[in-house]
Amino acid sequence: MNIVFIGSGNVTAILGRKFVAAGHKIMQIYSRNASAASELAYEWDTESTNYISMITKDADVYIISVSDNSIEPLAKELHLPGKVVAHTAGAVSKDVLQAVTPHYGVFYPLQTLRKESPHLPDTPIFVEAATEQAQLVLDNLAATISHNHEVHHVTELQREKLHVTAVVVNNLVNHLYTLVEAFCKAEGVDFKQLLPLIQETTERVNNSSPALVQTGPAIRHDEVTLNKHLELLHNYPQLKKIYKTISDSIEGKAL
Amino acid sequence: MNIVFIGSGNVTAILGRKFVAAGHKIMQIYSRNASAASELAYEWDTESTNYISMITKDADVYIISVSDNSIEPLAKELHLPGKVVAHTAGAVSKDVLQAVTPHYGVFYPLQTLRKESPHLPDTPIFVEAATEQAQLVLDNLAATISHNHEVHHVTELQREKLHVTAVVVNNLVNHLYTLVEAFCKAEGVDFKQLLPLIQETTERVNNSSPALVQTGPAIRHDEVTLNKHLELLHNYPQLKKIYKTISDSIEGKAL
Repeated sequence: MNIVFIGSGNVTAILGRKFVAAGHKIMQIYSRNASAASELAYEWDTESTNYISMITKDADVYIISVSDNSIEPLAKELHLPGKVVAHTAGAVSKDVLQAVTPHYGVFYPLQTLRKESPHLPDTPIFVEAATEQAQLVLDNLAATISHNHEVHHVTELQREKLHVTAVVVNNLVNHLYTLVEAFCKAEGVDFKQLLPLIQETTERVNNSSPALVQTGPAIRHDEVTLNKHLELLHNYPQLKKIYKTISDSIEGKAL
Repeated sequence: MNIVFIGSGNVTAILGRKFVAAGHKIMQIYSRNASAASELAYEWDTESTNYISMITKDADVYIISVSDNSIEPLAKELHLPGKVVAHTAGAVSKDVLQAVTPHYGVFYPLQTLRKESPHLPDTPIFVEAATEQAQLVLDNLAATISHNHEVHHVTELQREKLHVTAVVVNNLVNHLYTLVEAFCKAEGVDFKQLLPLIQETTERVNNSSPALVQTGPAIRHDEVTLNKHLELLHNYPQLKKIYKTISDSIEGKAL
């Protein structure tokens, strides 16, 4: 398919690389950030523009990957009647694209994507579409790059629910790592020594329900260790509060 | 080296397999759980016993891997003067072994270990020792199975600090996965679709400081999305409370 990207950030970079690898043609990249757009255009041997009026009308599908708050104002300036247009956000209604084309939708990659990534991570794609034509085009596109070539249809509410869970397992877990890294630095222990454990914790959830492999002082109601840990975290109020909240939850205490 | 295990649980199973693979001889396994001990003895072509008086005096080193609360009572029954004896717990003082032998210590694997594991995970080993002889023997043993053959010396306080961080990145993170899995089941979304994201979140921390790759609604102070998420979690008070606590921490709000 012939694809235009609107936006030149992390999502564009990774989806674009996957599209190119799958044999699609990136026709153009539009972005207010001219240098980011031209870098990706160079990578994919295509053209870029930072004029909205210069966006080509000749593509099959337009993928909008800009920050959540920018989608709606940008959509007001876009008129692509007859074309299929989708945004990639987890938490924005597809209906903000209503005035752009009848064939609008969402192309939501359930993954954390970064331009600098040395590899293209497995990425389940979740599709919502306003018309059959949009559904068909977005499904075909998704099937070429999705994890196991699976395409998932979702309602807006289901996508929002997926987005919450994605925030928990990615953003909130990353914050725990951040607080632990800061604790390690300040206390003179080496955060790197935790990487095999972090890796194995993840491996395990691939093979077993996490509910069945819970271990640690909280599930044993080992109050001596829990209290010792809270003392060790005395100077780290964020980590201490989070440690206590999650441990209470593991113990089944009312929160 | 000739090794005796005291205890027949997950830590014995995985450390034992690593020792065998490194060319050591498991001389005997003592456990109150005769069937678990004999299963491992069969695996390693050695003997097992459930009589404490039958523990051989002919080994070089004795590794005690029993539940935290069982170490001290068990140590009171053990007399192995001249031998090197270590426990494997993250949160128990080495001094509970004082009466067993002068050459006591700790052999702490910073990893989550399960008998059923299909592989032997990378495992950094942290050693504490009461005498030079204990240090020498435990160091040599650790070097044969430790991640990158590195041996780490720690003080009791440093080991306790490592143990807190291990609980956070393993037990607390696993509880987040557990709550998310339960939410997915109840809300009809497929937890398995989150596995590539969980995997990638871990990959990233191998290559970048987590502090530098924080994303999501909280770091953007996107209160619209945060409030929408809290509404979606309305029927899940544990997950909602944890979501709010960690998001507040990311936003830098006082906790």
